[in-house]
Amino acid sequence: MVEDASPLLGEVAAALAPHTGHAQVVGLTGSPGVGKSTSTSALVGALREQGKRVGVLAVDPSSPFSGGALLGDRVRMQEHATDSGVFIRSMATRGHLGGLSWATPQAIRVLDAARCDVILVETVGVGQSEIEVVSLADTTLVLLAPGMGDGIQAAKAGILEVADVFVVNKADRDGADQTVRDLRYMLSLGRRERDETKWKAPIVKTVASRGEGIGDVIAALDKHRDWMNRSGERDRRRQLRAEAEIEAIALEKVRARIGDLRGGGTLPELAKRVVAGELDPYVAAEDLVDTVSAS
Amino acid sequence: MVEDASPLLGEVAAALAPHTGHAQVVGLTGSPGVGKSTSTSALVGALREQGKRVGVLAVDPSSPFSGGALLGDRVRMQEHATDSGVFIRSMATRGHLGGLSWATPQAIRVLDAARCDVILVETVGVGQSEIEVVSLADTTLVLLAPGMGDGIQAAKAGILEVADVFVVNKADRDGADQTVRDLRYMLSLGRRERDETKWKAPIVKTVASRGEGIGDVIAALDKHRDWMNRSGERDRRRQLRAEAEIEAIALEKVRARIGDLRGGGTLPELAKRVVAGELDPYVAAEDLVDTVSAS
Repeated sequence: MVEDASPLLGEVAAALAPHTGHAQVVGLTGSPGVGKSTSTSALVGALREQGKRVGVLAVDPSSPFSGGALLGDRVRMQEHATDSGVFIRSMATRGHLGGLSWATPQAIRVLDAARCDVILVETVGVGQSEIEVVSLADTTLVLLAPGMGDGIQAAKAGILEVADVFVVNKADRDGADQTVRDLRYMLSLGRRERDETKWKAPIVKTVASRGEGIGDVIAALDKHRDWMNRSGERDRRRQLRAEAEIEAIALEKVRARIGDLRGGGTLPELAKRVVAGELDPYVAAEDLVDTVSAS
Repeated sequence: MVEDASPLLGEVAAALAPHTGHAQVVGLTGSPGVGKSTSTSALVGALREQGKRVGVLAVDPSSPFSGGALLGDRVRMQEHATDSGVFIRSMATRGHLGGLSWATPQAIRVLDAARCDVILVETVGVGQSEIEVVSLADTTLVLLAPGMGDGIQAAKAGILEVADVFVVNKADRDGADQTVRDLRYMLSLGRRERDETKWKAPIVKTVASRGEGIGDVIAALDKHRDWMNRSGERDRRRQLRAEAEIEAIALEKVRARIGDLRGGGTLPELAKRVVAGELDPYVAAEDLVDTVSAS
């Protein structure tokens, strides 16, 4: 229903609302090839050993596909496919910008109300839209791997700012220590101006394919959750997440009303005059907003 | 002013409006490594030899940077840097989803009014947002290169649907003919159900680094422009582009009004109640839209 933006979703959301707020939402991102899927699967296994219910949302902003399509590739996840304590779902953009910022918080809400203790939100790549998705999390986990030029890439995309825990995966490979040193150096540059009372993102080394270091990642997640609760940062982030969610739904509602006006001729008529050079698009947009507001 | 979303932009757009509608807008996309930058530079050179004024917008949806930042990398473009008949600009997302769908048509409008004959809009990658950007063009040019698995990638991202001209670059490499054959096969599958009067996207082979085949690309662009004018498709696309542009500006205006309400306490208050489970986000969004409409 979330993915199809069902009109019944409002009713369902109202019923779910009192049951939300329990889960720890963990965002997980990194460039292709760093081992996100393997790491997610290893984390799911470790959390299940602790008896926790786990939700996994695999979010791909570059794919027009949603639902089961991507899961075919996710061989690593199949070991959890028959475990009733694990829920796994692939999501994509539903074909328009803003799609993920709309659907992801909704899907988190559903898994939260379904009593998942931890919800892992895995995204592909470290672009702007991925950062928006992972920044909705309580805890953001950034994966790197040796020798992939991730350091520069990460700095470019602003991922250093949003990471709560860094994981250097494939730590048995050459260059792992160099990657850790590069990362530590870049973090030290950023920290110079930072508040000393702030959380300092730890760097954890893993070999996810053999389960090495996964316990350390879990420990870092627990430590961050405790800090979030103590510091009030948890409430602050949830407040921002709810604001972003409400805004996205509101914009979607406005977009739907514009769509209705397209049928009625208002938008096509305005566009026709813009193409003819009789009207500029700003005045046209002002007209459109007024019409939408009055409708 | 476009990149900064200047409040004066409305006034400027009104003054520009009567001077727009002249340029041919050519979208150019393809996966990293296919030679987009080299091809763009070669096309600029060929168009300049015909005495045409050329605008280049390099759009990177994954980068938070805008302005001159990316141009440092664009060594290939530097041969045109001192040519007053060429305008080159890098653009990025301005930090929010919808940023490119907002800024790109505006920037095209400015270059159009500045009497560019051809405006090349180059985007990185073939994701959903890139497709949205290039589909704003009069003519969409999709670049491929041998042996990059582009075929499957292209089909996945729906790029086959939006391409008006295919360019197989690096055609001196092994596998170029195979790439052409794969592409032709995939196109034949799609065409089976298609209208015979529709444009059939030609496949042009190039070695852009040596300028080979660039004349063929220019010829294909000219042919497509003529077909667009004859078939009425040009007007249809410009109508859709104007509709998309007006809608993007309108949504941005609504977003700005929501931002004002954040200061006033409306959105934070709604979000607080959603976090507490007292209110669901749909009812909150409905409240927000009503407040925005009344403001």
